[in-house]
Amino acid sequence: MKSLEDLLYGLLQDVYYAEKQLLKALPKMAKQASNQELSQAFLTHRDQTEGQIARLEQAFEMLEKKPRGKKCDAILGIIQEGKEVMEEVEDEDTMDAGLIGAAQAVEHYEIARYGTLCAWAKQLGKPQIARLLHQSLEEEKQTDELLTTIAEKSVNKEAMTA
Amino acid sequence: MKSLEDLLYGLLQDVYYAEKQLLKALPKMAKQASNQELSQAFLTHRDQTEGQIARLEQAFEMLEKKPRGKKCDAILGIIQEGKEVMEEVEDEDTMDAGLIGAAQAVEHYEIARYGTLCAWAKQLGKPQIARLLHQSLEEEKQTDELLTTIAEKSVNKEAMTA
Repeated sequence: MKSLEDLLYGLLQDVYYAEKQLLKALPKMAKQASNQELSQAFLTHRDQTEGQIARLEQAFEMLEKKPRGKKCDAILGIIQEGKEVMEEVEDEDTMDAGLIGAAQAVEHYEIARYGTLCAWAKQLGKPQIARLLHQSLEEEKQTDELLTTIAEKSVNKEAMTA
Repeated sequence: MKSLEDLLYGLLQDVYYAEKQLLKALPKMAKQASNQELSQAFLTHRDQTEGQIARLEQAFEMLEKKPRGKKCDAILGIIQEGKEVMEEVEDEDTMDAGLIGAAQAVEHYEIARYGTLCAWAKQLGKPQIARLLHQSLEEEKQTDELLTTIAEKSVNKEAMTA
């Protein structure tokens, strides 16, 4: 039988695994992107992801647990869908539009998960963990907004004229 | 080689499949939930999901395509994670907290996908499709907010005292 603290620990492992997968996926996405601003956004978020992994490790430590990843089928599915776009699209601008769509699915997955982690940590009387992960939550939201801006400003328009 | 319209059609199929999966999952989640408000929220969203499926069918029609689902690994992964919570947790209040976490991951997946569908439809000069799916986008956002409210108001507190 699992307690709320067990759920928190399990979800930390889930997100830890997910972030490590993204650390590998983001440079590939940056390489595939033609729009310079988009490519840079992926690289910047790759660096942020390193910091987010460090925060998760701190959170494990605060729970007196060893950092450990647990296979996360959701993120694997989301990344798989992104890969399919990369394989099936040839036109550069359409590729960029597809990459943004895939990346926003990733961001929203993380927004949901960090939101839940913060809520549970607060409820469990662990405000330091909530504050720590809230920083990652804000970064994910900002990245999502930046991707929307890039899409509206240029990528989707370019994909249309392809 | 795929165009932006191909991507739109592909993503419609993805979301159509996802919504049909959710139509089956939501009554099970409602049954598992102990908190009355939470259970009702799942049932209400089940009914909304029927309407969202109908909107997707209208969107297919506007593209002069047959409604068709395409296996969506992302939603299957997210639902799988929800199932694991239902199997592993016994305490009622902790179960409710876990169910909310799983449901919010679903909502955020849909928010990301409907957001992308609306952006692409607008870009492709299909504002009727964008307007139609924007209604579903708003419903998903409202459901996500309702789940946060229920969690903050009661479920997480009850899970703590379990």
